[in-house]
Amino acid sequence: MQGLEVEEVLDVSPWRKWIAVQARIPGKEGKAVVLLEKKPFDVEDVKRMLAPNAGAEYKLDFQNAEYCVYNLQVPPALNAIKCDTIFPATDQQINKYRKDEIHVLWETVDIYKNVVLPFVEENERGRRIQWVHNILDGSAEQERIIYHNNDPRDGFVLLPDLKWDQTNVSNLYCLAIVNRKDLVCLRSLNDENLDLLQNIYHQGCGAILEKYGVTPDKLIVHIHYLPTFWHLHVHFLHVDLALSAGVTSKAHNLRDCIENIRLLPSYYQVKEMEVRLLEKSLLWKAWTEAKDAEAATQLQDGP
Amino acid sequence: MQGLEVEEVLDVSPWRKWIAVQARIPGKEGKAVVLLEKKPFDVEDVKRMLAPNAGAEYKLDFQNAEYCVYNLQVPPALNAIKCDTIFPATDQQINKYRKDEIHVLWETVDIYKNVVLPFVEENERGRRIQWVHNILDGSAEQERIIYHNNDPRDGFVLLPDLKWDQTNVSNLYCLAIVNRKDLVCLRSLNDENLDLLQNIYHQGCGAILEKYGVTPDKLIVHIHYLPTFWHLHVHFLHVDLALSAGVTSKAHNLRDCIENIRLLPSYYQVKEMEVRLLEKSLLWKAWTEAKDAEAATQLQDGP
Repeated sequence: MQGLEVEEVLDVSPWRKWIAVQARIPGKEGKAVVLLEKKPFDVEDVKRMLAPNAGAEYKLDFQNAEYCVYNLQVPPALNAIKCDTIFPATDQQINKYRKDEIHVLWETVDIYKNVVLPFVEENERGRRIQWVHNILDGSAEQERIIYHNNDPRDGFVLLPDLKWDQTNVSNLYCLAIVNRKDLVCLRSLNDENLDLLQNIYHQGCGAILEKYGVTPDKLIVHIHYLPTFWHLHVHFLHVDLALSAGVTSKAHNLRDCIENIRLLPSYYQVKEMEVRLLEKSLLWKAWTEAKDAEAATQLQDGP
Repeated sequence: MQGLEVEEVLDVSPWRKWIAVQARIPGKEGKAVVLLEKKPFDVEDVKRMLAPNAGAEYKLDFQNAEYCVYNLQVPPALNAIKCDTIFPATDQQINKYRKDEIHVLWETVDIYKNVVLPFVEENERGRRIQWVHNILDGSAEQERIIYHNNDPRDGFVLLPDLKWDQTNVSNLYCLAIVNRKDLVCLRSLNDENLDLLQNIYHQGCGAILEKYGVTPDKLIVHIHYLPTFWHLHVHFLHVDLALSAGVTSKAHNLRDCIENIRLLPSYYQVKEMEVRLLEKSLLWKAWTEAKDAEAATQLQDGP
């Protein structure tokens, strides 16, 4: 490849040092998506770039007593950039990387019952979770399973998340998926599920200690709400990963969930909850249509 | 500066593309701390580095159908690194950047009463929060205040956090500090504080909307437990910042706190809570000494 012409910035993350752009390749038909990400520091490269006579240039930006800030320019080979390209890219692929508006919303019990649950039953249940059933039914990924409690009511399967390459335990990411197919999410849980939740915490932590040598005081264990797929599952992350990247406000600590249900068995049926929705999600559409309908009804009824 | 010799890697964040090393400057006495961070992408630099004839080199790592991954080497000026140095650095400054072990622990009500609260009363109350009192008493930062509800029981002051430069609202970070000096943390809260918490949420969101034009559905509002300083305060973050960097498992959503207290007024007095402690923290020392004492007592008592 010789170069590209940037047409549109799709998204950018200053924190992660990442950018997505739509571009054209001169002389070729079709659009390209280009994803640039600065690479993490490699210790040997750092030694080489800082070494005297490495060809690095230090330009002083700021000085105060013992503190200096330099703009450091180093030889290109020591500071390469990861460059993913999709070419030719479809409009769908381009849209996938275009930043979407996110909304932080407050889900009342009525909204869950009248909007979210019907949406899940209609659009999500049984679809997009075939891979989960394949794992539970024994037809896929059996060699990846770390632990399986076969109890149909209080059992679960534990396996490494596909995002984790299993090489570095400080990036540990495992997933527990419950055997029962009727628990759709955090909202489904009550005191009948306490044994299940405790099994997941204790047996899951035990299996991770045995397999990877990571102790429970290094694990952040949580349930997402809203979840990405609607079959109850629990995330196990190494605290280093959780601190740097993996935990957001949609994470509900598993031991908190157990405590909440102990204190009030119907906690997750009566509590209002914060949720975050992307505008391009189908649930956002259902949610706003219901809000519009509600507003229209209220107008008809009069104040 | 001409270059450095790396002596020890103190800490590294692959996600943030950051590294801290201890180094020596050839020919000079004393140690240096060097903090390297890859810079976020600048759109104009990206256009220049991708442009044909920019002098960039694409080395193909991987290809599958329309997907290619390249190792991209670009001219140094388009891909500079931020380089902070401390020289000469004291051992204390070096230790500050050396990675510490973190532990995820489970705080029972007894541990809070017998270890955490006495530690706070002895070591934290009245110390290290003079800056908070200065703001509340009107002797500092008055020009930075966005909103002040003067009610001694249910009032608070809202101001931008020092971490935010107030230029880009997608990095918005504000802090609400309560007027009362007797509320040390989340554990202090019960149904007598519901008006205070609701004032903080509603008046805080209102003031941020008026001052910065950011709507409440773009805000993540939470209380840290354990907090960094022991005078009750609430964090307001733009959701973009919260998603990329700012929210960890120590964040307790403010509206969740209000709901929990509504459902059970003594919620934060009776609930067990997850906490994270660094080994170099004084509270970790108090916590482990108490655990040791407890273990010793149990041994004396016999099973």
